[in-house]
Amino acid sequence: MYDVYRIREDFPVLKKVIYLDSAATSQKPLPVVKAMDEYFTEYCGPYGRGAHRLSKETTEKYEDAREAVASFLGVPPGNTIFTRNTTESINMVAYGLDWRRGDHVITSVMEHHSNLLPWMRLRKRGVEVTVVDADDYGVVHVKSIEDAITERTRLIAIGHVSNFFGSIQDVRAIARLAKRHGIKLLVDAAQSLGEMSYDFEASDCDFICASGHKGLLGPQGTGILYVKDAEGLDPVFAGGGTVSNVTLEGFSFDEAPSRFEYGTPNIPGVIGLGRAVKYVEALGVDNIESHLKGLAKYCAKRLSEIPQVEVYGPEERGSLVSFNLKGLNPHDVAMILDEARKICVRSGAMCAQTALARLGISGAVRASFGCYTTKEEVEALASSIEMMAKTLT
Amino acid sequence: MYDVYRIREDFPVLKKVIYLDSAATSQKPLPVVKAMDEYFTEYCGPYGRGAHRLSKETTEKYEDAREAVASFLGVPPGNTIFTRNTTESINMVAYGLDWRRGDHVITSVMEHHSNLLPWMRLRKRGVEVTVVDADDYGVVHVKSIEDAITERTRLIAIGHVSNFFGSIQDVRAIARLAKRHGIKLLVDAAQSLGEMSYDFEASDCDFICASGHKGLLGPQGTGILYVKDAEGLDPVFAGGGTVSNVTLEGFSFDEAPSRFEYGTPNIPGVIGLGRAVKYVEALGVDNIESHLKGLAKYCAKRLSEIPQVEVYGPEERGSLVSFNLKGLNPHDVAMILDEARKICVRSGAMCAQTALARLGISGAVRASFGCYTTKEEVEALASSIEMMAKTLT
Repeated sequence: MYDVYRIREDFPVLKKVIYLDSAATSQKPLPVVKAMDEYFTEYCGPYGRGAHRLSKETTEKYEDAREAVASFLGVPPGNTIFTRNTTESINMVAYGLDWRRGDHVITSVMEHHSNLLPWMRLRKRGVEVTVVDADDYGVVHVKSIEDAITERTRLIAIGHVSNFFGSIQDVRAIARLAKRHGIKLLVDAAQSLGEMSYDFEASDCDFICASGHKGLLGPQGTGILYVKDAEGLDPVFAGGGTVSNVTLEGFSFDEAPSRFEYGTPNIPGVIGLGRAVKYVEALGVDNIESHLKGLAKYCAKRLSEIPQVEVYGPEERGSLVSFNLKGLNPHDVAMILDEARKICVRSGAMCAQTALARLGISGAVRASFGCYTTKEEVEALASSIEMMAKTLT
Repeated sequence: MYDVYRIREDFPVLKKVIYLDSAATSQKPLPVVKAMDEYFTEYCGPYGRGAHRLSKETTEKYEDAREAVASFLGVPPGNTIFTRNTTESINMVAYGLDWRRGDHVITSVMEHHSNLLPWMRLRKRGVEVTVVDADDYGVVHVKSIEDAITERTRLIAIGHVSNFFGSIQDVRAIARLAKRHGIKLLVDAAQSLGEMSYDFEASDCDFICASGHKGLLGPQGTGILYVKDAEGLDPVFAGGGTVSNVTLEGFSFDEAPSRFEYGTPNIPGVIGLGRAVKYVEALGVDNIESHLKGLAKYCAKRLSEIPQVEVYGPEERGSLVSFNLKGLNPHDVAMILDEARKICVRSGAMCAQTALARLGISGAVRASFGCYTTKEEVEALASSIEMMAKTLT
């Protein structure tokens, strides 16, 4: 039985505000904070270096976290790399593949900037980039991707869930398409991991890029990169911990995952993320998913009933609802919600300008939910918007 | 009055072990842990995004940390960038400068891999790299650098303190040399920041790269990059938080520091680092420096008195002493110290293979100190090595 009120006891910030900005970053449960504290106060040491007990314990806990994340994804730990955030994960792929002039990449108008700009930057190196369109609800049709494929297409980079529309892309079908054409597939799972049981096999993807600090409830400063063929990706950054046999003439990279984890990593962050993944698993991703989908559906329905409100996105959506209230700037809506009722929502372009441009708008309000969000909180938002709408007319 | 015993009360791990591995990563004082806990339990929100109170408070605290670090360095906050670690900072410079074939970089044989490999990799792009030698004590003579300068030299990249020899390079003289020739200067201050008052003006450097998690006592996963001319450095990674005006055709980067801080940053880490810098300032860097130099001098002296021990590095050294005990592998020495007396030291090549190769060795033992290390702890190390030496003969 999914008891959101019991869950909330682990999230002290929720006593102060109505937090509806979990798609930007989520609140962290106390056991995660405790796991990081324990690192600092009980066994703080370097990772992967040194023979002493603190180094050993640190390395063991760090690798436990890697096991936890890999097992959660259903992929081998050796191919599971800790990064700073999804943005870094995606950039590492964009920089690390061996591009040739004329190579072709397909991405979509729905993408977060982080899954758009790294590809656009490849244009300078002679790589062609097609940004396929979506429908009015933010769904990228598999047919559009198929139509964009050329003989030179090497990669399809697609976000699982749009951070603006909340639309869910059919990654399973896209994976089949990619496989049929021998094209690599990168899935940006920033907005879905931990909140949605896959509708695809992780192992069908060549790259999975995700945040630790959103649906997985890990600390900010953690990201994940799963690479199916680690030898086929060149490390972007070189330095301590990534190499062996360094001479004045050159050096050779270690195997994965070390070759990709340059310098001293975010040890407390990774340990916190490992604990967070276990927390999410204990709640059950299926339970979280149905909780979140229920909230999103209710929120979209309630807001749609307000005549001055335009709600974006499809019926079937992830854990967020974007909307606008006619006659009021989205930033003002967000500010009033905060001041009047301590409701925290996001406003603006949400790092997805091309997705918003699709609708001819440059800003919106977004309410997004976490495993700890209650229906009462969503109702507080809806009734506040209702009141604001009444005041405006 | 510098009271190391009072300071130690802030470092709970020190009750369990004799921690002599601070050059790898330092222990963190409780106020730093507390500052991070407060973020998670009192105002956890996204950075730089959104109009709500949690976002505002988070952004304010993050920027406070930037102010603290910038003021500590004596540079403008707008040019102070938070990175993952020193390795990332240096790589960002190596990737972000606009290199041309035939450009020339000077670095030294003393460097940590992180300040060597990024330059070596530029060779593929036609950049020439000269790795100047050092003397037998790990000191890079300014004359060697001067002799290596050509008309095409664009950058000198030098570590302030060698992480193996503990030797201190004359950065002030190197800065004058660089300025005279119109060459950019990058200082790797990983092994000195927070432990040594500058013998150079930060503003004389074009780039300062440093760790947050060593002498500054900040959490692992934090690094610093000071860039004098932020417009002259291209951001390596692009994504959320770094750009404006994104269309299907292209985008433009924000100003510094945003343009360099891609995606959701390590918010708790940065906040912890800000608190840590204040902690270090309260102790006084001058006080810390004389404490550490005293320990290092004592350690080197005591170890040198043991006939079977070879101590590396010069008289005047940073906060570490590397050595070997004849007849015993350095890893075994480290393991015995740990098992017999819970003394934590580093062993191996310390990510500085070319520095060790300079002496014809491939490994050593390193004892390194923090503001919390006592003379008794150093004596425990020395007497243990003494005993081991006796057993061997």
